[in-house]
Amino acid sequence: MPSASENLVPVEHRIAADQRHLRNRHRSAVLWFTGLPGSGKSTLALGLEQRLFELGAQVYSLDGDNIRRGLNSDLGFSHEDRTENIRRIGEIAALFADAGLMVVTAFISPYRRDRETAHAAAGNAFHEIYIKASVEVCERRDPKGHYALARAGKLPDFTGVSAPYEAPENPALTIDTDRLSIEESLDLLVAFVRAHLLLT
Amino acid sequence: MPSASENLVPVEHRIAADQRHLRNRHRSAVLWFTGLPGSGKSTLALGLEQRLFELGAQVYSLDGDNIRRGLNSDLGFSHEDRTENIRRIGEIAALFADAGLMVVTAFISPYRRDRETAHAAAGNAFHEIYIKASVEVCERRDPKGHYALARAGKLPDFTGVSAPYEAPENPALTIDTDRLSIEESLDLLVAFVRAHLLLT
Repeated sequence: MPSASENLVPVEHRIAADQRHLRNRHRSAVLWFTGLPGSGKSTLALGLEQRLFELGAQVYSLDGDNIRRGLNSDLGFSHEDRTENIRRIGEIAALFADAGLMVVTAFISPYRRDRETAHAAAGNAFHEIYIKASVEVCERRDPKGHYALARAGKLPDFTGVSAPYEAPENPALTIDTDRLSIEESLDLLVAFVRAHLLLT
Repeated sequence: MPSASENLVPVEHRIAADQRHLRNRHRSAVLWFTGLPGSGKSTLALGLEQRLFELGAQVYSLDGDNIRRGLNSDLGFSHEDRTENIRRIGEIAALFADAGLMVVTAFISPYRRDRETAHAAAGNAFHEIYIKASVEVCERRDPKGHYALARAGKLPDFTGVSAPYEAPENPALTIDTDRLSIEESLDLLVAFVRAHLLLT
């Protein structure tokens, strides 16, 4: 037995955050979108991902499409399961930030306390972004027909109708989609990223 | 209310995998290490991460240190919890691959069926890499003192002592750490990545 194999000891050497930042030319970040169903979170998350990718960034979006079908397919929509859903997403987002990426998360995340847990996981990399729209406008958009179902009593615990939404008290950025177009919203988001996260 | 805000409809446009590959100059991948406790998985994962980062790759390691303390802090070591642990790691690794990274996972993952679940989550990006070492050598290394505790009956369900390890039947690569040094092992791993994943 060669002696080298006996000396296989843990090498606790990870890539330093600074090295990843310099490589990517931007800080890592969790851009945590929160807002009512239909406020525009997913649309803006995918649009922002596209814009930032075009700027050369390492960027990825987490949304219901890639989370609820996979990792969190074991969870429902009870209060307890929603909390666990957001806890896990917060931890995953923190891992992506640790890997040097800017990750955009598009989840209603209606409870302040759950968002605080996500914040704690990612630390300083966390930026809460409020995608703000009135229930009236969201309900008029109703992209998935969920408001109609909720009003008809066919979708219980629906945020904005039969479950509460706790708006952020001190978001890093608010995007008012009652008043702004998609392009205007994306311009604001990109300006925020340029100001805070891109290395010049 | 400006009409633009009424037209906020889903833009189902994600960054294509090809675009990420071209940007990063490598394919995305899940390099799934499996092997006994003490076989060298974590050491080689961190070493490979370092080597690949130096080659310019977007790379990240998942191991007990960043998974068990965060995302999977709610799980224990029962058979059921181990299966859920590996299921979640498989889903997260698949997300990292979807984001264009090469992700190295360093978990015992003793059950074939659990590794198949992880394989299914990542599809073609998945590469099973067997970090092979005899129980005798692993027990002599015993970097965390766990074999000693397990032999003393103080650590139940310990893989290799009191819980089974199902070796891969057809791994993409086997690294025999009974015989190879750390540097020799890393050379083989980097050669595998160069051959299969780096764009020239």
